[in-house]
Amino acid sequence: MRVLNSWLHIPADSDFSLYNLPYGIFHTGDGKPRAGIAVGDHIVDLAAAAETGLFGKRRFFKKIFEQSTLNDFIALGKPVTGRIRRKVQAWLIQDSAPENAERLLANRLDAHMLMPVRVGNYTDFYSSIEHATNVGKMFRPDNPLLPNWRWIPVGYHGRASSVVVSGTPIRRPWGQIMPPGQDVPVYAATKQLDFELEMAFVIGKDSALGEPIGAAQADEYIFGLVLFNDWSARDIQRWEYVPLGPFLGKNFGSSISPWIVPLEALRPFRVKGPRQHPAPLSYLQTRGARNYDIALEVAIAAAEKSPQTIVCRSNTKYLYWSFAQQLAHHTVNGCNVCVGDLMASGTISGPEAGTYGSMLELSWGGKEPVRMADGGTRTFLEDGDIVTMRAAAEKNGIRVGFGDVSGMIVAGSAGK
Amino acid sequence: MRVLNSWLHIPADSDFSLYNLPYGIFHTGDGKPRAGIAVGDHIVDLAAAAETGLFGKRRFFKKIFEQSTLNDFIALGKPVTGRIRRKVQAWLIQDSAPENAERLLANRLDAHMLMPVRVGNYTDFYSSIEHATNVGKMFRPDNPLLPNWRWIPVGYHGRASSVVVSGTPIRRPWGQIMPPGQDVPVYAATKQLDFELEMAFVIGKDSALGEPIGAAQADEYIFGLVLFNDWSARDIQRWEYVPLGPFLGKNFGSSISPWIVPLEALRPFRVKGPRQHPAPLSYLQTRGARNYDIALEVAIAAAEKSPQTIVCRSNTKYLYWSFAQQLAHHTVNGCNVCVGDLMASGTISGPEAGTYGSMLELSWGGKEPVRMADGGTRTFLEDGDIVTMRAAAEKNGIRVGFGDVSGMIVAGSAGK
Repeated sequence: MRVLNSWLHIPADSDFSLYNLPYGIFHTGDGKPRAGIAVGDHIVDLAAAAETGLFGKRRFFKKIFEQSTLNDFIALGKPVTGRIRRKVQAWLIQDSAPENAERLLANRLDAHMLMPVRVGNYTDFYSSIEHATNVGKMFRPDNPLLPNWRWIPVGYHGRASSVVVSGTPIRRPWGQIMPPGQDVPVYAATKQLDFELEMAFVIGKDSALGEPIGAAQADEYIFGLVLFNDWSARDIQRWEYVPLGPFLGKNFGSSISPWIVPLEALRPFRVKGPRQHPAPLSYLQTRGARNYDIALEVAIAAAEKSPQTIVCRSNTKYLYWSFAQQLAHHTVNGCNVCVGDLMASGTISGPEAGTYGSMLELSWGGKEPVRMADGGTRTFLEDGDIVTMRAAAEKNGIRVGFGDVSGMIVAGSAGK
Repeated sequence: MRVLNSWLHIPADSDFSLYNLPYGIFHTGDGKPRAGIAVGDHIVDLAAAAETGLFGKRRFFKKIFEQSTLNDFIALGKPVTGRIRRKVQAWLIQDSAPENAERLLANRLDAHMLMPVRVGNYTDFYSSIEHATNVGKMFRPDNPLLPNWRWIPVGYHGRASSVVVSGTPIRRPWGQIMPPGQDVPVYAATKQLDFELEMAFVIGKDSALGEPIGAAQADEYIFGLVLFNDWSARDIQRWEYVPLGPFLGKNFGSSISPWIVPLEALRPFRVKGPRQHPAPLSYLQTRGARNYDIALEVAIAAAEKSPQTIVCRSNTKYLYWSFAQQLAHHTVNGCNVCVGDLMASGTISGPEAGTYGSMLELSWGGKEPVRMADGGTRTFLEDGDIVTMRAAAEKNGIRVGFGDVSGMIVAGSAGK
């Protein structure tokens, strides 16, 4: 890869290197949302850049970038979005700061980030074999990995309305719980609030109802990736999920990182995935490296200023089913996808205990408390806890990161 | 109820009486979508009515009614939408035809109906005890009605993108199927394509994330009802649904009737529901008549001009869990709802064989073929079949109907 240098100071360890250039929606206290590209501790204000004529068609692009979501921009298609990104990159790697530098740059550390896309539909997969096996052992001891798992990238529909951007507090949900050994459920706040460490891809192109997307075409439809925390209430989930799947145990909130890392920025980090045995059916077969080597971690702090404890270090490369396979499966029956749809991977757990992507697995169903840096322990999350997930790919000194997705647990409200 | 008469001829058996006045989005061949209210064989063109000043605020209402969905209209709230409906009713019950009658009326029988709302989120419940018991007997003979069923209005998230309006052809989905007695799945077109007879309610008011909607407040959030066909591929569903629920067996398409019947039009048809035993937890308790007496039927024709066979006659009143209970449950954990969200009831089956709301139940898993009027038989649906559902409430000579929701099965496409 060509070595890039900028007139702008970009910290060496920044997630947002010149090779990344992810997209987001921000405002700077004026309440006017607009699109930007993150670079180091700055944001290139795309609306301002459009106004200066950096992309041509001034009025057209200004209007696109002054919207409160990226949907219309993404819908322009990769030839256009890729050209915009390359223009921004070229602007950043000039020999000296251009005259309009101050006008086009915002301070990222002061900016307020919003949801990057309007999520029309959200799907959650279950694509880590380690996670599926761990959860299976706890929920169905006699039958951990179900017979369909190695054939199907198992997934289910989630709730789009409650997907929120990093930083949004998460209220502890109330719901029905069957206490162990009882036969009458109680209505109570969950005692088993959990995170799930996931990656999600954002759909970049509409497909038509009735037209499957082949696994080889899938990358054309994937605009980029975000970090995803699929908050879960295990006790609510356990009582409700048979036979139609998780519902209130999940739909009280899911958090995403605010910057969408475009798929092209992740190309250098592609790696082979785990061997798939048995061989998938033809419509799920892909060639070449299908996974991404992206290091992941989860930290918990007991309060705003408490020390963080890194409870999990995992990696996107552990996923058994790839994003392309997930999308091919999702649409093989003709189900259509729309720009802005979100498809999450399912919890990404690795092979050892410290790599498990949920408290359910880390504390093994609550039986093995996890030690915190402040001297406390956790089986599940407590009110005041702040969960922060981070993700970054790194190779030959080049770093492409996701920033973080975080959320604080606050007490919830009972129903009336 | 006051007897209403109009200068307009309204057939006595019309679903769209003066007591109904449902909302939809239509165009008359010019491709310009606009909002309308159905009455008899006509549509009151709300955009044209706004232009004449019928509702006041000419420009405001014209803009609202010239949109391609009803979302913004519905979001104005029931005090406003109710006032519009009463203005239209008053316009219709004048002593003689007003001068602007021709300008405001379109021929309903020639109109082209579009999706009435942009569906942000779609949820499917499972609220008929007869259906849950029947399906349970076939899918889990040893354990038909699961222990949570009488405590929880069980539901799961469906796919919003593939909800289509009545008349849209439905392509037979391909997918993974495990042939009986085998241990390697095949990739094939479904052999067990089915309908599910459901009603769905349309959310009329946003709620905030974290704020449950109490069962007593639920009606404020329910704008109206549509008929709903939750097309299902049973063989795909059977292989995929454990443990995370139905996915590709359902999300290839769901059809809704084009006219949203407002909740206030259905008030005279409220009836008690089945006795709930055990008593629901406090947040699910409601007072008074919680169900609706709406007669339902399903007809199948083998082709466009073939005779229809009515295969099922059921009734909304059979639902064990009411719409209000479904909504209270859905939000008890703080999950938010948005204007235009759709929540379907699940298949509405009654107590006897002729009242079952799916082919799965009518043919008892394919073992008891259903006789067709043309001499043929059906276990599941065949290509060319047209399924038409109808619904109407009737009492003291007053009829409030839904029109119909229909769809033809066409051959599907294999993935690449």
